[in-house]
Amino acid sequence: MKIAFAQLNYIIGDFSGNTDKIIKVIKHYGNQADIIVFSELSICGYYPMDLLEREDFILAQSQSLEVIQTTTANIKAAVIIGGIDNNSEQGKPCYNACFIYHQGQEIFKYHKQLLPTYNIFDESRHFAIGKLSPIWQYQGKRFGFLICEDAWNHQAPYLYDTNPVADLMAQNLDAIISLHASPANEGKYQQRLQRFSQIAKDCHSPLIYVNQVGGNDELIFDGNSFVLSAQGELIQQLPAFKTSADMIDLSHAHSTISSEFATLSPIEIYYSQLLLGLSDYVSKCGFQGVVIGSSGGIDSAVTIALASLALGADKVTAITMPSPYSSQGSVNDSQALADNLGIKLYHRSIKAEYELAIQQFEQTFGQSASKLTHENIQARIRGRILMEYSNHFGYLLLSTGNKSETSVGYTTLYGDMNGGLNILGDLYKMEVYAIAKYINQISGKIIIPENIITKAPSAELSTGQKDQDSLPDYPVLDAILRLYIEQDLLEPDDIQANQQMIQQSDFTDIDTIINKVDKAEFKRRQSPPILRVHARSFGIGRRLPIAQNYQSHRYFEI
Amino acid sequence: MKIAFAQLNYIIGDFSGNTDKIIKVIKHYGNQADIIVFSELSICGYYPMDLLEREDFILAQSQSLEVIQTTTANIKAAVIIGGIDNNSEQGKPCYNACFIYHQGQEIFKYHKQLLPTYNIFDESRHFAIGKLSPIWQYQGKRFGFLICEDAWNHQAPYLYDTNPVADLMAQNLDAIISLHASPANEGKYQQRLQRFSQIAKDCHSPLIYVNQVGGNDELIFDGNSFVLSAQGELIQQLPAFKTSADMIDLSHAHSTISSEFATLSPIEIYYSQLLLGLSDYVSKCGFQGVVIGSSGGIDSAVTIALASLALGADKVTAITMPSPYSSQGSVNDSQALADNLGIKLYHRSIKAEYELAIQQFEQTFGQSASKLTHENIQARIRGRILMEYSNHFGYLLLSTGNKSETSVGYTTLYGDMNGGLNILGDLYKMEVYAIAKYINQISGKIIIPENIITKAPSAELSTGQKDQDSLPDYPVLDAILRLYIEQDLLEPDDIQANQQMIQQSDFTDIDTIINKVDKAEFKRRQSPPILRVHARSFGIGRRLPIAQNYQSHRYFEI
Repeated sequence: MKIAFAQLNYIIGDFSGNTDKIIKVIKHYGNQADIIVFSELSICGYYPMDLLEREDFILAQSQSLEVIQTTTANIKAAVIIGGIDNNSEQGKPCYNACFIYHQGQEIFKYHKQLLPTYNIFDESRHFAIGKLSPIWQYQGKRFGFLICEDAWNHQAPYLYDTNPVADLMAQNLDAIISLHASPANEGKYQQRLQRFSQIAKDCHSPLIYVNQVGGNDELIFDGNSFVLSAQGELIQQLPAFKTSADMIDLSHAHSTISSEFATLSPIEIYYSQLLLGLSDYVSKCGFQGVVIGSSGGIDSAVTIALASLALGADKVTAITMPSPYSSQGSVNDSQALADNLGIKLYHRSIKAEYELAIQQFEQTFGQSASKLTHENIQARIRGRILMEYSNHFGYLLLSTGNKSETSVGYTTLYGDMNGGLNILGDLYKMEVYAIAKYINQISGKIIIPENIITKAPSAELSTGQKDQDSLPDYPVLDAILRLYIEQDLLEPDDIQANQQMIQQSDFTDIDTIINKVDKAEFKRRQSPPILRVHARSFGIGRRLPIAQNYQSHRYFEI
Repeated sequence: MKIAFAQLNYIIGDFSGNTDKIIKVIKHYGNQADIIVFSELSICGYYPMDLLEREDFILAQSQSLEVIQTTTANIKAAVIIGGIDNNSEQGKPCYNACFIYHQGQEIFKYHKQLLPTYNIFDESRHFAIGKLSPIWQYQGKRFGFLICEDAWNHQAPYLYDTNPVADLMAQNLDAIISLHASPANEGKYQQRLQRFSQIAKDCHSPLIYVNQVGGNDELIFDGNSFVLSAQGELIQQLPAFKTSADMIDLSHAHSTISSEFATLSPIEIYYSQLLLGLSDYVSKCGFQGVVIGSSGGIDSAVTIALASLALGADKVTAITMPSPYSSQGSVNDSQALADNLGIKLYHRSIKAEYELAIQQFEQTFGQSASKLTHENIQARIRGRILMEYSNHFGYLLLSTGNKSETSVGYTTLYGDMNGGLNILGDLYKMEVYAIAKYINQISGKIIIPENIITKAPSAELSTGQKDQDSLPDYPVLDAILRLYIEQDLLEPDDIQANQQMIQQSDFTDIDTIINKVDKAEFKRRQSPPILRVHARSFGIGRRLPIAQNYQSHRYFEI
């Protein structure tokens, strides 16, 4: 029994493009394989959100499925594909389904039973709960089906009344086929391997895990599809962050392989993940390239470097925009970075515009502008200049705020928050430094100037300003934020490590930090999409009211 | 049997403030009434979103409920209040519940059975499905409970497997008590009256419908709590958009009353709704006042007028910022509007800043800026000036884009989209005109200058520019947008009226309009909250991916 499986990079709602990609794989494996497996909701891409509420969208995907069904008419393989099925009974009007086509006929279908509705997932908003049997008999073999969340109701707290995996045990299966649209985040791969290994062992069955790959707005699917033996051991693996397909013959014994991906550090993973997330957003939205403000600081340097590595130096423009508070060192660092990467760097002083704005402020309002006003004017003139470039040349502007700054609101709305995408917004400040060092390390030369990595962080918006004037050191700040923002998703070891970091510092005013995070919610509501690397990212995964008066810091304990 | 009921204005997460408001009502009616009823999730406000995932939040609300429970120790009345209950079984960790306290004891509780998860609602994200009996026996009487959505699974498409209303029929009830957090939107009040009248008749029971009141970010709860006879007739009604409480003795026969609210036009309702939504956002977020850019056009004029009516003239600052393309008429119109309202209007020409920006653009990039770049620079200098005022004086900036413009992307990101709240963003352009006329009508004098209402709409960002250069007339545009954005929520009569409007025009290029709507999704993702008046508003009620390639206009039919 030969099973081919493909992790492809789908564009949401691009039925014609997605269908073409799928058919290409079907044609390649059609007469070699007995079965070809694609991922969850592959035909429409994940996640279409409220496009799923449009009748014409459902119709268009059904028509695409018919095309694929027809393609199977003259080939040997049965094709398993994730798509949408209609529900004419009670409940939401459609199912998150998988269909099996063979020789031009639909011969089986299954509906996802567990619908994740938390964090980044909204499936109860659109889908009905599946009730169909997950057991498929084909050519004398028995297969069991899972779709993504179906596998995960195995430990407390039990979010669902049923456990589809339990229904697959003692079923004497020849294979479990599990379809996924599982985005990458910190620790996720290890969780998957562990969980599915347990499922294979519990069901005494080999298991084929098929994910999709690619970036869709915030979410980046890592692929990493794999096959496990009935003993739960890894016997085949597709690469991370790459479109790929392969075939395995389950009739033969396979030797265990070790996963290279499992040995990667989080920083190595984030690096590849962000490159894919950025390049997919740019290509799927149809931009010519990207433009980035280069402050000479670590965040813009890493953003510029990642963009150059993802898209090529010719697709990246940087602009350095010194104000009277910018050091010459910052401009020099920007230039050195641009030279190292071979990208175009424009110089545009904002001095004249800044001074004119301040003068006109005083003329109009009869007062000297406050310190905050002075600072924000600089950030907003820069934000406007970057948008001038974006408007004129059709380039996507990338904003550069990291997760630490975004958490406490140390970014300027309509200033450095300007942009269509933020690629560092889910990286804590210390992780940004780590990525910088990693880029230099794998490049075998200095890409990001040492000075950018070693100097004290400053927004350079007033004389002598340093980030640490009003914040604890970043290792401590990051530890506080991790506990506040994602404590419920951290492993116990991580919680302890962060608590120790805080306890060993002399910083005690945690309430102030928590309060800053809460008060900055209005800014994050207007943020561009942030590429997600942690389990709890800002955006669709963390939804909070703005006008509220909950004093959460009263209950925050270290 | 005397039943008091209160529609209060809660702040989300403000447990101490909300508890105080509730206790005040309990003390007032405690020895007059047999029962006092508050609305759904009143103790925490609706909707706390992911605050519901915090253990400390759940704990804080439980402590507040205990305070209320204690308050009932020495009074006659039983107190019915919406709050959160813990779930220790399978499913999400808490219930959307109502509790009954009497003489210091919890004597009954009920859990919401139907959890709305569509449009603006996310309840499956946080709550488990209730299984408790809705029947409460008290002092020889039988009461049936509903919580909001429980009442609405009565017609196809049936979103849920169960119908809690059916379980109340033939129960020989003395009253149905229905707790709500139901936001106002077009036609909603009539739908409620009709539905609950049917429930009262079907169950042969009087019905008490208790809503909350007030604005929480996008959502504005209208109050409008009412009591129906067992014949389904209106016998008592609290006012719209006002904190209020009253008592009814169900032992006596009541004569039917007619609802004033039912006779109001949509424009009259939107007017009151927006005033409340704005004033609550300002007070709940703690701003001193609001600042608005005054272009001399209809949108900024209506925003300024509504703000003055909601907050008082002394809390509103306007700034007129003419560019070389602004007509003197626009500045004059801005001044006339400010004079009519008695608000402060600052004049600040952007000519020098605009010219400097253009000159520096050419110097930096070696090209003449494109038309779009020229236009956006003006909007963004203005946006920055408004934020200068906001930063310096602590005023909330209001953005002014209406729903028609926001739909097709005719607003400038980081320019006129700047602001913490948009109060017109769910009003189509023709509705903005209607509100302007309504304001003049109820004021008994000209508030919004006639010239602003009658002149051709223009952004005045280039010479001779008019909105209708690139868009159909607004009545036609609005009709297209209504069909595209909210067809599934419109009544058949409305659909027909909009179709007729389009057919009678000579505009046929509907695909272009639909395409503009789809392409502007990235801008709306960065929009401030928009006060919601229609059933389908931009924001949490309409969630779409940005990087997608679905050609929906292929399927749009008039």
